[in-house]
Amino acid sequence: MAREATIDSRQEILRTAARLFQQRGYDATSMNDVAAALKLSKGGLYHHFQSKDEILFDLMDHAMDITQERVIDAVRDVSDPEDRLRMLVRRHIAVVLSERDREITVMLHENHPLPPSLRRRINARKKQYVHFLERLVADVQIARGAKGSVSSRAATFALLGMINWIYQWYRPDAGSLHEEDIVRQYTEIFFAGAFQ
Amino acid sequence: MAREATIDSRQEILRTAARLFQQRGYDATSMNDVAAALKLSKGGLYHHFQSKDEILFDLMDHAMDITQERVIDAVRDVSDPEDRLRMLVRRHIAVVLSERDREITVMLHENHPLPPSLRRRINARKKQYVHFLERLVADVQIARGAKGSVSSRAATFALLGMINWIYQWYRPDAGSLHEEDIVRQYTEIFFAGAFQ
Repeated sequence: MAREATIDSRQEILRTAARLFQQRGYDATSMNDVAAALKLSKGGLYHHFQSKDEILFDLMDHAMDITQERVIDAVRDVSDPEDRLRMLVRRHIAVVLSERDREITVMLHENHPLPPSLRRRINARKKQYVHFLERLVADVQIARGAKGSVSSRAATFALLGMINWIYQWYRPDAGSLHEEDIVRQYTEIFFAGAFQ
Repeated sequence: MAREATIDSRQEILRTAARLFQQRGYDATSMNDVAAALKLSKGGLYHHFQSKDEILFDLMDHAMDITQERVIDAVRDVSDPEDRLRMLVRRHIAVVLSERDREITVMLHENHPLPPSLRRRINARKKQYVHFLERLVADVQIARGAKGSVSSRAATFALLGMINWIYQWYRPDAGSLHEEDIVRQYTEIFFAGAFQ
C-alpha cells in the first residue's frame, strides 16, 4: 500500500474532500467518493476520519485556523487601530480570494448540519472573530471621533457581509474586479460609512 | 383522501419543504420526509413534484418572484433615484427578515447542486436583479455628483453582501439589532460610502 503511506497528514484528505463538496455538493459526496478520489481504500480513509461529519468539522476548524493565522495574528501587532483595520480588511479579502483555500474557507458559511456539540465549537470560534473585529471597529470609531450614529455592531456585520459575500459572485477568470480593486473600494466604502 | 384534496396549490409543499431543508439540511431531507410532513402519500407528492431538484428549483424561482414583487416592482415607480434606492434597501432587508419567507429566500444563497439548465435560469434572474441595482446605484452616483472612486459594480456587490449576509447572523429572538436599526444604519453606511 505505497499510496496509503504517502497520506501522512489529514490535510490532503481535507483538501480533496473540500473540492468534491464544492463540485458535487456536500450531501451528494459520500465517504466512498472521497476515498476513491484519493485512491485510498475505504478503510484507509476511515483510519483518518470516522465520518463525513468529522471531515466537515475539521474543514471548518481548519478554515478558522486560516482566519486566525492569516487575519487575526497578522494584524495583532499593528499598533494604530485604523492601520490595523485596513490591514484586516485586506487580509480577510485575501483569504476569501485565495485560490488555494477558498474551497475550504467557504465551508464556514454553508448551512450543512453538524452535530450540536461540534456546531457550538465552530460557532464559538466565529463569534471570537466577530468580537475581535467589533472591538477594533469601536476603537477606530473612538480614534476618529465618530458621532455614533452607526454602532460598531451594525458596522461589523456590514463589513463581514461585504467581504464574505465575495464568495457568491467572484470568479477568478471573469476578472471584472481584481483583488486590489475590491480591497481599495471596499475599504473606501466602509471607512466613509462606518466612521461618520 | 380528504387530506390530499386540500393541497390545491404547490405553495404549501414548497413551504414545508423549505422548513425541512432549513431544519435538517437539504440533502438529509428525502422526498419521503417531505411527503410525511405534509401527511401526503409519496404518490400524492410526486403528483406535484417529480423530484427534489424540481422542488429546489421552484423554491428558488419563488424566492425570485418574491424579490421581483416586493423589491423591484415596489420601487419601480419612485421617480427620484435616491428615494428609489433608499426604498430598495428597506424592502430588500424586509424580505430577508420576513418570518414568513426567510426559509424560502435563503435557499437562493445556498450552494446545492441543481441541473445546469435549471441553475442557468436561476442565475439569469439573479443577474437581472444585480443589473437593476447596479443601474440604480450608477444613477444615484450621477445625481449626487460622486467623484467616481467607487464603481457602481463594487458598490452593488458591497450592498448585496451587507444585506444578504443578514441571513447568517440575524436571530429574531436574540434581538440586539431590530429591523429599523439595520435599515437606518446600513443605509447610512452605504450612502456615505458609495457616493463619495
